[in-house]
Amino acid sequence: MMAKTLKVELGTRDYPIHIGPGIFTDAELYRPHIAGAQVMIVTNETIAPLYLKRLRQTLSTFDVREVVLPDGERYKTLEVWNRIFDALLNARFARDCTLVALGGGVVGDMAGFAAACYQRGVAFIQVPTTLLAQVDSSVGGKTGLNHPAGKNMIGAFHQPRAVIADTDTLETLPQRELSAGLAEVLKYGFIRDSAFLDWLESHMAELLARDPDALAHAIERSCEIKAHIVAEDEFESGHRALLNLGHTFGHAIEAGAGYGTWLHGEAVAVGTCMAADLSRRIGWLSEADVRRIHHLMVCAGLPTQPPSQLSPERLLELMAVDKKVIGGQMRLVLLKMLGEAAINSDVQRDDLLATLSTHAS
Amino acid sequence: MMAKTLKVELGTRDYPIHIGPGIFTDAELYRPHIAGAQVMIVTNETIAPLYLKRLRQTLSTFDVREVVLPDGERYKTLEVWNRIFDALLNARFARDCTLVALGGGVVGDMAGFAAACYQRGVAFIQVPTTLLAQVDSSVGGKTGLNHPAGKNMIGAFHQPRAVIADTDTLETLPQRELSAGLAEVLKYGFIRDSAFLDWLESHMAELLARDPDALAHAIERSCEIKAHIVAEDEFESGHRALLNLGHTFGHAIEAGAGYGTWLHGEAVAVGTCMAADLSRRIGWLSEADVRRIHHLMVCAGLPTQPPSQLSPERLLELMAVDKKVIGGQMRLVLLKMLGEAAINSDVQRDDLLATLSTHAS
Repeated sequence: MMAKTLKVELGTRDYPIHIGPGIFTDAELYRPHIAGAQVMIVTNETIAPLYLKRLRQTLSTFDVREVVLPDGERYKTLEVWNRIFDALLNARFARDCTLVALGGGVVGDMAGFAAACYQRGVAFIQVPTTLLAQVDSSVGGKTGLNHPAGKNMIGAFHQPRAVIADTDTLETLPQRELSAGLAEVLKYGFIRDSAFLDWLESHMAELLARDPDALAHAIERSCEIKAHIVAEDEFESGHRALLNLGHTFGHAIEAGAGYGTWLHGEAVAVGTCMAADLSRRIGWLSEADVRRIHHLMVCAGLPTQPPSQLSPERLLELMAVDKKVIGGQMRLVLLKMLGEAAINSDVQRDDLLATLSTHAS
Repeated sequence: MMAKTLKVELGTRDYPIHIGPGIFTDAELYRPHIAGAQVMIVTNETIAPLYLKRLRQTLSTFDVREVVLPDGERYKTLEVWNRIFDALLNARFARDCTLVALGGGVVGDMAGFAAACYQRGVAFIQVPTTLLAQVDSSVGGKTGLNHPAGKNMIGAFHQPRAVIADTDTLETLPQRELSAGLAEVLKYGFIRDSAFLDWLESHMAELLARDPDALAHAIERSCEIKAHIVAEDEFESGHRALLNLGHTFGHAIEAGAGYGTWLHGEAVAVGTCMAADLSRRIGWLSEADVRRIHHLMVCAGLPTQPPSQLSPERLLELMAVDKKVIGGQMRLVLLKMLGEAAINSDVQRDDLLATLSTHAS
């Protein structure tokens, strides 16, 4: 199996996504993207014992420092984010420094947002170590933090200089996180590519067994679709929003359950089932489509119902805070068919409540 | 006296700077720049009793909310900044909302940075009420916060949709802040326009007496110079850095004295005197030029010496943290002659220490 390189086409800010086994220790993948001598590795307490030492060795020709954050979505806060600035300023890092995010989506979002804001913008490189980060959060330049009142409410668009997705790092991923990553992989099939969806359906067992070739293909195709959509609509003024299938529901579930209780991918899986149900109610999907989506989630080891303590009314309230709401009107990503998503700004409250009630346990 | 409009030329993000008496209550100046219905006014405890009610009335056709921050540079922190997000989220403000910064540089920097980061970027309008904000901080899109280890270390480039500089608001400005603003006005003369410097020298008495025509002219010419420089180099990759004359010294003084003890303009005045002394040491300015700069500062009611507790060694240490340091080499803005600044990356430590010692009391 060979490493492969995709490109995100963003004019002067083009960047490569390298995907393959054993590549995170290849110094040559980093070198072209490190401007000065100073490198700050941002990672967390779970990942540091596994990979930090090898990354430090890989970058040993630079002045490398590190900041190790606590692990988990509930630490994606302003206070924890500030520790990155403490580390950068204690080490007197200048404007030509480079941040390297080593970890999952939370580390990538916080390190990327710190890179966006340190001295009004410095370079950063993503080294995602979870499936979810490799197929989604490390690509596309969305960075940010949670606020108690809503997920990713504070953030910036700040593209990495490179993404280095080492498929070997998935070997240490807990099974629950592997499944959560598959929720985002399935998403690309749902919104854009029914052939990929067929492939995922027939290869789910290999994916769950971490067959390296199957995982590499799934990551590659996911990144291709994401890179293509991001290149067309970097700042989400249009159809980049389609990547948010299931996310407005999902964010409400994450916030309602308490950040960190549910994994992002798990909430997205339930949210996608809700979006599918709503798509059926407005006549876009068939009953059979909805059942197929449910079945895929179950096969991938993902939940299809929200936590029992969340009432439909509470979910609706939490959804109204989500930032996809524009001018008071809720905009939801729904499915016209399997492989084609569209935005609907005209969802009726009754339909929405019916969907939420169906899914409340 | 008529209102005047300048334009900052930034392609698709062009924006107007309106300057004149009584204009902050002209709803028509805001309307073209407010996308949705939701408007959040960000102001502080000093400015709110003076102008908030009239601004609310001016914008009464919109859904207007407000957040009132404590007044002063020492509150330009992550914690206080977060109150803006609390207010936005409590009011369920969406991505098409608009922030209006009503106040001086601190309010403008914090509101602008909140606008840069709320839901990854929303619109904002600057309504600067201090001379310093009208001639400098409200124009050009630099936003940010202080960190205990350095001023403006966390921030973003985020251009306003419009700047509305009402010269009548200067009537309520304390004399010390008027002088602090004049330090930045003088800066434009020093770095770019010796004729303007001559004009300032001969009109200093009118300016200090707040003659409306004199102030309007000073603001207009300052904004013209700044708008021109920003249009050429929005992200400070080149000669926008010339606007930082005296600022590396000044930031060290502000940090060393404790934020809020010294006004930014006061620290810049001392920093400019230091830059002048250093410029003389490397053969760029004459003794007479240096004396003239000192004299202008004194006439404007500004200090020329740093606080007595700051030793030259401590100042040097604080300067090394400043973000103008690139790759360990200190880059300083110095004066080739009155009316022309240049960056010098080759300042000798001995010369710098000699300058700092000369100015230590």
